[in-house]
Amino acid sequence: MVIKCKMNRDNIYNFASGQSTLPIEVIERAQAEMLSYGDTGMSVMELTPDSPEFKKILSSAEEALRRLMNISASYKVLFMPGGSSSQFSAVPMNLLSSHQCADYIVSGQISKKACAEAKKYGDIVIAASSGGASPPYSTLPDMKRADFRPDADYIHICYNNPVYGTKFNEIPDTGNIPLVADMTSCICSEPIDVTKFGLIYAGTEINIAPAGITVVIVRNDLVGNARKDTPSALDYRIASEGELEYDGCSIWSVYIAKLVLEWILSIGGLDEMKRRNEKKASLLYDYLDGQGQSYYTSPIDKKCRSMMNIAFYTGDGDLDRKFVKEAAEAGLINLGGHPSVGGMCASIYNSMPYEGVERLVKFMKEFQKSNPKIHG
Amino acid sequence: MVIKCKMNRDNIYNFASGQSTLPIEVIERAQAEMLSYGDTGMSVMELTPDSPEFKKILSSAEEALRRLMNISASYKVLFMPGGSSSQFSAVPMNLLSSHQCADYIVSGQISKKACAEAKKYGDIVIAASSGGASPPYSTLPDMKRADFRPDADYIHICYNNPVYGTKFNEIPDTGNIPLVADMTSCICSEPIDVTKFGLIYAGTEINIAPAGITVVIVRNDLVGNARKDTPSALDYRIASEGELEYDGCSIWSVYIAKLVLEWILSIGGLDEMKRRNEKKASLLYDYLDGQGQSYYTSPIDKKCRSMMNIAFYTGDGDLDRKFVKEAAEAGLINLGGHPSVGGMCASIYNSMPYEGVERLVKFMKEFQKSNPKIHG
Repeated sequence: MVIKCKMNRDNIYNFASGQSTLPIEVIERAQAEMLSYGDTGMSVMELTPDSPEFKKILSSAEEALRRLMNISASYKVLFMPGGSSSQFSAVPMNLLSSHQCADYIVSGQISKKACAEAKKYGDIVIAASSGGASPPYSTLPDMKRADFRPDADYIHICYNNPVYGTKFNEIPDTGNIPLVADMTSCICSEPIDVTKFGLIYAGTEINIAPAGITVVIVRNDLVGNARKDTPSALDYRIASEGELEYDGCSIWSVYIAKLVLEWILSIGGLDEMKRRNEKKASLLYDYLDGQGQSYYTSPIDKKCRSMMNIAFYTGDGDLDRKFVKEAAEAGLINLGGHPSVGGMCASIYNSMPYEGVERLVKFMKEFQKSNPKIHG
Repeated sequence: MVIKCKMNRDNIYNFASGQSTLPIEVIERAQAEMLSYGDTGMSVMELTPDSPEFKKILSSAEEALRRLMNISASYKVLFMPGGSSSQFSAVPMNLLSSHQCADYIVSGQISKKACAEAKKYGDIVIAASSGGASPPYSTLPDMKRADFRPDADYIHICYNNPVYGTKFNEIPDTGNIPLVADMTSCICSEPIDVTKFGLIYAGTEINIAPAGITVVIVRNDLVGNARKDTPSALDYRIASEGELEYDGCSIWSVYIAKLVLEWILSIGGLDEMKRRNEKKASLLYDYLDGQGQSYYTSPIDKKCRSMMNIAFYTGDGDLDRKFVKEAAEAGLINLGGHPSVGGMCASIYNSMPYEGVERLVKFMKEFQKSNPKIHG
């Protein structure tokens, strides 16, 4: 549920899960450069794909991501047009090259959709699902290497599940089978070991830039084996050769990505980003596990807790709705959980300042005090 | 060829073919609203797909396009993620539903690529090509209804060809066979009769918004027949149902589209846009056909001339390069023709002011005077 409120930037904190806020420094820089980028006399939006400035923005964004995530030359970094759902098809179309089969771990709605889409292109099996947990998807399957088919072309996971608030805090061991991870909702929130993955993809709308493009980090040997009927716009080989990468690639999104990634580098990279994110998440989880426990419930298995999306509820649907409404009036907006789950979900992505979480915990305390539960 | 120059907005005119300039009113409005859109306290870039503001931007953009182009309820208007090349695959995947065959008119590199991509999905025939003209693609094939296969599922044309400077000033008569047109480089430049087309698609980078999304105007009966293995992100039915339309759809591009389309409405719609575009194009064509004729050549068949892209050359490659370089130094940038064609090409899209073309013609006269050709 989204509540509208009349606010200016200075007194709201946006906890939406579907599109993250952006660092204010980035928005202000984009505003200042809007009429003329560098010394071009043109807006970034007016740069042609064959201009040196456009190419420089693209290469700077790639370079910043490579530095941040420590991505070696064994991987290509692609900025592909469209959202992560395009990759639900692109992954099987490019990667089902040897045995035409792949295993999916289903940990929520997103990975379920990815799996359903992949079934159009090959023999796809759900290796495990946490849909039967109570509440559904409140934990993640514990997978051993033997749980996967040895001839699978790849194993697919959704690394962080924003609707539920879970994250693979341990990377499943898939042996020699390439592990593919949808990292849309957690990319660049902490250091990860890229070499453990065959392919990582992430819609940029969380932690990188506004929606419009998807970052694909793919091991070189997995490029060049696409099905013959793969749309060129989804073919990693074509994207990596540059010809179609630019066609329809939102230069504005890449430009904002560049500014955001350089901002992360400037504050100390992913180590510092992780420190900040852990500090924010701990503040809220510690409250939920301590003082707030008598009033709010955190439904997620502790070993799978997400650092980005923190779900909680009061146990009373009416009270939850009142919470979301009054929080919005107090400037803490978009705290409603996904309609399929209900309750509350605080998405505290990279750009959420610590003060935002402090304000939330303060509000939670006040709400608890002024809305005592009637115990029957 | 792109020449870099140190300029501010006030003294340059950008004649690039791959990404149009934007109306200054639109850029200034986007700049002013950058930190807080309306009373949301958020940047447009931070709006979530399920927020009322995001949906309002999307519906306002659609409404403005429907009003401008007089699009009836018999057509859906979709803002799909990615560039027009995504539609090279989406069109055959969605439309090759009855006889699995379609006819393509090849009028340049773009339609050639569209045709090659379609061949992945069915029995595709080049009904006609102007590649054999001299110079290649300097005219357009004259097609009669009998020139098309009667069982074709659709006929595909590229309505305006920016690399060459041609346009279908007469719409080919395809009878009952749906006509599909790539209008990327001319959409909203003049009124057109949408009912003559089964499907119109246009990457937004010309006349609508920065690259990142593609507008698809598709007759209702052509939706819902996609191949089973069509990626969901390319399926018109799924896009028209809204679920995936938002996923990865660049809200920033839709927002700029809304501002640009409303700007066209505010100046008098497509009738006024056509008047302005004709006035600009006439100034340059009249010069090329008259006073400039002894020095510059306009290679395009007069009945196929584009109002958006005007190609010309001196007949001397060195002189052409000198022209492009010195024009850029004078603030008239990106006048070089496509590398495959050479010479010059002035792209004078909707946002190019009349003064820009005046400046160009003035420069052409001066260049002619100071660079006499040596007749041997």
